[in-house]
Amino acid sequence: MIYKDKLSKIIKASNSNLVVGLDTDFDKIPSVFKSAKNPMLEFNLCIIEATSKYCAGYKINLAFYEAAGYKGLEALEETVKAIPRNRIKICDAKRGDIGSTAEFYARAYLDNMNFDSITVSPYMGFDSVSPFIERKDKFVYLLVRTSNKGAEDFQTLKSGNKELFDIVASKALSWSKNQIGYVIGANHLKEIKKYSLSKANTPLLIPGIGAQGNDIENLMKNINNDLFLINSSRSIIFAGHEHDIKSVFLRKVSEQANSLNNQITSLRKKHFK
Amino acid sequence: MIYKDKLSKIIKASNSNLVVGLDTDFDKIPSVFKSAKNPMLEFNLCIIEATSKYCAGYKINLAFYEAAGYKGLEALEETVKAIPRNRIKICDAKRGDIGSTAEFYARAYLDNMNFDSITVSPYMGFDSVSPFIERKDKFVYLLVRTSNKGAEDFQTLKSGNKELFDIVASKALSWSKNQIGYVIGANHLKEIKKYSLSKANTPLLIPGIGAQGNDIENLMKNINNDLFLINSSRSIIFAGHEHDIKSVFLRKVSEQANSLNNQITSLRKKHFK
Repeated sequence: MIYKDKLSKIIKASNSNLVVGLDTDFDKIPSVFKSAKNPMLEFNLCIIEATSKYCAGYKINLAFYEAAGYKGLEALEETVKAIPRNRIKICDAKRGDIGSTAEFYARAYLDNMNFDSITVSPYMGFDSVSPFIERKDKFVYLLVRTSNKGAEDFQTLKSGNKELFDIVASKALSWSKNQIGYVIGANHLKEIKKYSLSKANTPLLIPGIGAQGNDIENLMKNINNDLFLINSSRSIIFAGHEHDIKSVFLRKVSEQANSLNNQITSLRKKHFK
Repeated sequence: MIYKDKLSKIIKASNSNLVVGLDTDFDKIPSVFKSAKNPMLEFNLCIIEATSKYCAGYKINLAFYEAAGYKGLEALEETVKAIPRNRIKICDAKRGDIGSTAEFYARAYLDNMNFDSITVSPYMGFDSVSPFIERKDKFVYLLVRTSNKGAEDFQTLKSGNKELFDIVASKALSWSKNQIGYVIGANHLKEIKKYSLSKANTPLLIPGIGAQGNDIENLMKNINNDLFLINSSRSIIFAGHEHDIKSVFLRKVSEQANSLNNQITSLRKKHFK
């Protein structure tokens, strides 16, 4: 099944457009998880159990795992395996290298770990993306308009009458209509509106809600297709308090995921045309 | 000591501007290394021994190690430790993420593994670079003008009268005069000439020689400062034949590194003004 169909099916079945970002910063894991052999893994397994009812999938940002060495790699591999089969698995890698090297990143994350999709940086052009989309059931979320301050350094440069990010978005469609979507920060409402209205029905991955602090109602007013995923990381997985007992911590995580998902779902019903 | 000074000192002491790229593709490792507990590591240790006299340092492309799981991580960690102290260690990571995430990549590679420098992609702007240069003895090689075909997709877009890569290069200098250099492919002679003439004496990392096939004499005619590093990977580390016995394979590797280094050194003397 191609990713777009899988995504559509999962969004409907889970009644959710939320992805939980497993930005598992070792230092922020509450002490009650620290007695486990691999605290990052134990924490993630509990988070998945607490949230899977309220989300369409998980996004794993590799940086947090790479910073933790072998334990990090173990946590990463075992976490991906623990994500339920009927949930989307996004590898937040932001890689971008020449084709022969990108092929190895594709093997690492799409073949060996079996992620469904991966985030990729566009700076090096087509051959840095192609190995990922040569896997016909896999999908690339290309960095188009990111949520951070530095996004204004280059992404908004004008060439002719178009901005760089817009040129990236168009070019990506010429590379593949079905296997490339866009990463667009939740603060870029104009772009979210524009791209979610496009006929190509391009899947959007939208970070920047929660800890990065953008208004969810404003965001939802501007989304016009159904293949979007909204990512929230820290505001969900660290919703509990450092000194909570495990069950209390996880109940807060669960409630936060449920509440954010309800918000998204009801606003989707209200605003979706 | 800041990186530029360390680099200058090592280039002089080693009489070399060559970096050997440890693109250790597991499938290409000759069978004589495959009986080792960790063939990638064993291969790298032998390559370092065979080449360290003829190079200024090593560039390690993470993709090859990530594709090999735990053994890859072990090979990576132990290889970095085995590189002689008086050689430069470049982490070819091409990462680029929001500041809080980039901080974790900096911990993984600059703190934990103690690489001297790291390649970074510019698309997400300043905050994706800043955690790396907050470490005052560390250094970033920013992707400016890459050697691959896809480099023409976005890097040469014109904004005003400047191309994107040139805007990236200028902006990088405004971020840091001492801690950011450029990755420029060996096929981009005009840019190599221009940037190596700049007063900032910006270190250049130049891939695209050897397997990627660009003429070394033409390249050397266009280099005008002494802080450049030329990378060669496959053409050195796989210079031997699959069925060679170990000593023969490594002698060929050694000879190839020596020969390329001699070429670079004599052309440097001939052309350097």
